[in-house]
Amino acid sequence: MNQNKAKLLLGPGPSNAHPRVLEAMSAPLIGHLDPDFLEVMAEIKSMLQATFQTENHLTFAVSAPGSAGMETCLVNLLEPGDEALICVHGVFGNRMSDIVERCGARLIRVDAPWGEPIDPEQVRKALENCAPKLVAIVHAETSTGVLQPLEEISAMVHQTGALFVVDAVTSFCGTTLKVDHWGIDAVYSGSQKCLSAPPGLSPVSFSERAVEVVHQRKSKVQSWFLDLSLVSNYWQGAKRAYHHTAPVSSMFALREALTLVMEEGLEARYTRHWEAHETLKTGLKSMGFEFLVKEGFRLPMLNAIKLPEHLDDQAIRSSLLKNYDIEIGAGLGNFAGKVWRIGLMGENARIQAVEQLLDALGELV
Amino acid sequence: MNQNKAKLLLGPGPSNAHPRVLEAMSAPLIGHLDPDFLEVMAEIKSMLQATFQTENHLTFAVSAPGSAGMETCLVNLLEPGDEALICVHGVFGNRMSDIVERCGARLIRVDAPWGEPIDPEQVRKALENCAPKLVAIVHAETSTGVLQPLEEISAMVHQTGALFVVDAVTSFCGTTLKVDHWGIDAVYSGSQKCLSAPPGLSPVSFSERAVEVVHQRKSKVQSWFLDLSLVSNYWQGAKRAYHHTAPVSSMFALREALTLVMEEGLEARYTRHWEAHETLKTGLKSMGFEFLVKEGFRLPMLNAIKLPEHLDDQAIRSSLLKNYDIEIGAGLGNFAGKVWRIGLMGENARIQAVEQLLDALGELV
Repeated sequence: MNQNKAKLLLGPGPSNAHPRVLEAMSAPLIGHLDPDFLEVMAEIKSMLQATFQTENHLTFAVSAPGSAGMETCLVNLLEPGDEALICVHGVFGNRMSDIVERCGARLIRVDAPWGEPIDPEQVRKALENCAPKLVAIVHAETSTGVLQPLEEISAMVHQTGALFVVDAVTSFCGTTLKVDHWGIDAVYSGSQKCLSAPPGLSPVSFSERAVEVVHQRKSKVQSWFLDLSLVSNYWQGAKRAYHHTAPVSSMFALREALTLVMEEGLEARYTRHWEAHETLKTGLKSMGFEFLVKEGFRLPMLNAIKLPEHLDDQAIRSSLLKNYDIEIGAGLGNFAGKVWRIGLMGENARIQAVEQLLDALGELV
Repeated sequence: MNQNKAKLLLGPGPSNAHPRVLEAMSAPLIGHLDPDFLEVMAEIKSMLQATFQTENHLTFAVSAPGSAGMETCLVNLLEPGDEALICVHGVFGNRMSDIVERCGARLIRVDAPWGEPIDPEQVRKALENCAPKLVAIVHAETSTGVLQPLEEISAMVHQTGALFVVDAVTSFCGTTLKVDHWGIDAVYSGSQKCLSAPPGLSPVSFSERAVEVVHQRKSKVQSWFLDLSLVSNYWQGAKRAYHHTAPVSSMFALREALTLVMEEGLEARYTRHWEAHETLKTGLKSMGFEFLVKEGFRLPMLNAIKLPEHLDDQAIRSSLLKNYDIEIGAGLGNFAGKVWRIGLMGENARIQAVEQLLDALGELV
């Protein structure tokens, strides 16, 4: 079968999973209310707290991909008529804006050119003219390769009393992310990026302040499936009340992937991502490629490279995949045909993977 | 590790997966836009059409559990101010009602006592006093064990011009379900019941009429993640536009589970479910147990059994799980402590599984 051919996944995710993760996923199923499974959930919660660097009680994995984690954060915290300030510097800030409007909330946007971070001054100015319930921003914009500094903006947001919501889909377990220390009230991620578990789950965490906002809602959350007041009864309630049937096998995989992170250590894992990035940078530079993002704001795990005009985007990516079994990512949105996105995530943030790609590119370009 | 201990899952799902399904899930990951994966999606679509017995073009698997499939159907078809007639004879009809209200639609309920089917006359009368956009009903109420006849109600619904929406989470691939022949406009199911794939995906299908209703919407769907106008561009658009990262490994498992159904044949699979049910019925009767649902309306794959007062619900189910590695389901909602739910789904709809349970119960009660 085609899907059994191992490929090197250097796109925007999924990354390759460790063999232990794949093996964990193929374990016999157990019931989603079985005490053994509740123990798995408890271990996942504990390891998510460690990897998010948070003591938040409400820390768990949404039973759907990262986009559903984004929606979980926004639909639970926003009610019709609320104001939300969304920082947009790529596809995922746009997606948050779209969801805010679907919540019936008033959207206020702060935009930066794609490929640049949001300047804290922009946020400061915007906050002078509105009183949002939350401010949301993408930590690692997968569409542009920008690493967004968060601490200064977080401090501004908290001065106004608003909640600070962060998209950490691509940064989680790949570069420093300190949920408590940085004052993040709601954060969501994905299983298939630097965690190197299969796609399908979205780790999330909510501060006490965020939980209180959910409790104080006047209206029901518009999504039954993502309603935290219901989901949390399954994840942490004394009764472990049935809500939906949890994706048991995916959760086995998530537990094993988190165990691998804990064994490696967060700092060592972050360092490994940066080292792989440096090796890629050196190699690509010597081939004449340029990065889209200026030094200092580049993501280590998602490298956005300008595509020289003489190169055929589609032909080279197809050849990489067909003839070299290497996937890299196309440009998204405004960057389609102009940018490549090279992911060095989780298991693939390794010198060996970088060299394999550089060798192949050397033959193709 | 605990989860590697094989258990016989005779609850309301998940059921045990076939070893081929577990093996498929542990295949190396590929990208969610890789041509090889698009081929997997095409095969899944084709086999879902066959198993739903439909030619509906918009047939796919929602990247989340069955409850999200329910929500997908309702949030895409309803807009604020619409009327929806929901037939309620258990937990899942209640859940649909809850979601209808979260859509801002006007809810009209038809209720039957738990353990009984909805009488078509009830629907006929209700339709005299309202003009709903859709009528929704649960085909196989997992909370009560009732098999709901659909054809007569479907005809009434279509006479009014309304859409007919069916919850087939537990019936799909276990008993006759003819989406086209029965005039079902939207149907959702789950992967972890009679299909015997791991939980986490929700097969769905929409008629051309339903798709037209989605196209004619005046407002955006309240959920970005479940918005059919976006999801369908990934599943069937010429461009295969990125929407969310599909749960690749779970889809491998789904494809293998569907392949097993096709190899067995739908009719043979339905017969196997009925034969397992008959064996269970005979065995339980000889032990003095009574079914909750009257003959003729019983689900083969979900057997709701009245718990005699002298038996300790929790103690026996715990012992079954701990000492015999057999899971059966507790009563839900009104039936907590009063009913057991014995699932004979997919791989577990086999005489051998029934005998294993009867032997264990024989020692315990």
